[in-house]
Amino acid sequence: MGAFKMRGATNAILNLSEEKKAKGVVTHSSGNFAQALSLAAKSLDVPAYIVMPDSASEVKKSAVRTYEGKITECPSTLQDREATANKIQKETGATFVHPSNDLDVILGQGTAAIELLQDYPDLDYIICPVGGGGLIAGTALTVKHFGNNCKCIGAEPIEVDDAWRSLQSGKIETNETANTIADGLKTQLGDKNFPIILENVDEIIRVSEEEIKAALKLIWERMKIVVEPSSAVPLAAIIKEKHRFQNKRIGIIISGGNVDLSKLPF
Amino acid sequence: MGAFKMRGATNAILNLSEEKKAKGVVTHSSGNFAQALSLAAKSLDVPAYIVMPDSASEVKKSAVRTYEGKITECPSTLQDREATANKIQKETGATFVHPSNDLDVILGQGTAAIELLQDYPDLDYIICPVGGGGLIAGTALTVKHFGNNCKCIGAEPIEVDDAWRSLQSGKIETNETANTIADGLKTQLGDKNFPIILENVDEIIRVSEEEIKAALKLIWERMKIVVEPSSAVPLAAIIKEKHRFQNKRIGIIISGGNVDLSKLPF
Repeated sequence: MGAFKMRGATNAILNLSEEKKAKGVVTHSSGNFAQALSLAAKSLDVPAYIVMPDSASEVKKSAVRTYEGKITECPSTLQDREATANKIQKETGATFVHPSNDLDVILGQGTAAIELLQDYPDLDYIICPVGGGGLIAGTALTVKHFGNNCKCIGAEPIEVDDAWRSLQSGKIETNETANTIADGLKTQLGDKNFPIILENVDEIIRVSEEEIKAALKLIWERMKIVVEPSSAVPLAAIIKEKHRFQNKRIGIIISGGNVDLSKLPF
Repeated sequence: MGAFKMRGATNAILNLSEEKKAKGVVTHSSGNFAQALSLAAKSLDVPAYIVMPDSASEVKKSAVRTYEGKITECPSTLQDREATANKIQKETGATFVHPSNDLDVILGQGTAAIELLQDYPDLDYIICPVGGGGLIAGTALTVKHFGNNCKCIGAEPIEVDDAWRSLQSGKIETNETANTIADGLKTQLGDKNFPIILENVDEIIRVSEEEIKAALKLIWERMKIVVEPSSAVPLAAIIKEKHRFQNKRIGIIISGGNVDLSKLPF
């Protein structure tokens, strides 16, 4: 479905007992994890209940429906989403799977970087976007355990630099505003992924909205991949600090192509 | 560079003598072949001279320049383009490589279908877009020589159905108008590829502009690949005749992502 969240969702479901699998899984997400959990569940013949904000675009809802996720809409506040997911858990017995703050999800997402290092064992850096923290936590674990002097660097929009500030302060910071085109990266870190990030991510590079848009356009035009703005943030970070990265072997985690084609920034 | 024309261009250059390679190659193209020949030549350390219509978009010119093709602009008529390419041949000694009507180009392009059949030996159909005829001629040769009862079907916009009419009449037909979004398929067949197509292509399916746009959107949204409208024509043909293709094993040749992101049809 276009994002490595598919791996986290699949791993989380595979780790459930048969009894729990039969009752299904539930999550709240408007983005890639909604599609990932739906498709992973469908592939494993497990019901998936997806709580989506009523403001989510028709494109995103339609993708979830295609993957046979059962959508429940609710107001877009975190409280409403959590309450709705709780209610579904109670009614159906489904297991809640958090999009990023779940160890099985984190480990599943880390497998993308394992395959990258299998193909290119001598990477100097793997650069990964930072949003809710699941993908980078898995990536960072992989880099430390399977890399050969490789460093894991996070990339984040300046407009939502909560993870950058969290690494400075040593506690989970939040964003007061979220004026970024990279809407997959607006979420904050969680108590399960933050300790992993704190210990294993070497640095976070922050980029501007203009830098994100330029990298996005480059990926679309030259790599011919439909990526969402969040996925272009690592390339934007490399281009921003290109002198430092010259002659280095760099892997980039590109994940997520959730875009509304009628609202492109080009 | 996003199109299988890269294979044809590479094969054509590799078949030149060292002496000819040193003098370079020349072609006239505004599309994927311009980029393909430039990048193939750059990779093989050979000069590439590209004749482009002065009406070509800046995006296309910029891609050719990135791949170090030396651009000469001229008016967009076929006569002007051929005259300009001739002049460059005389001045530089470069070898002319036609984008589609060249046996080495045709054979190079056929290697995409060879790899597809290596991965999926029991395909019932391989469906390929028809423009100048190079890609489908190579694909059809592959299907007949390496397929296992596989059929090669062409897909073409109704608005420029010269190849469909050529198969009916047994001679190369032309288009009087070219009102299609699939601008890579406006060209006509050539004397080298037409006999191959006539002998080895089983059928051509024609699709409407609306069918092309719907298939294009589906590829962008679900496969997350930036393809140009021409590349969506085979999927449009399958969707159009979906009952007939039900439960069949179908390979599709998707080639070319030459799009101006500021002028998308979505």
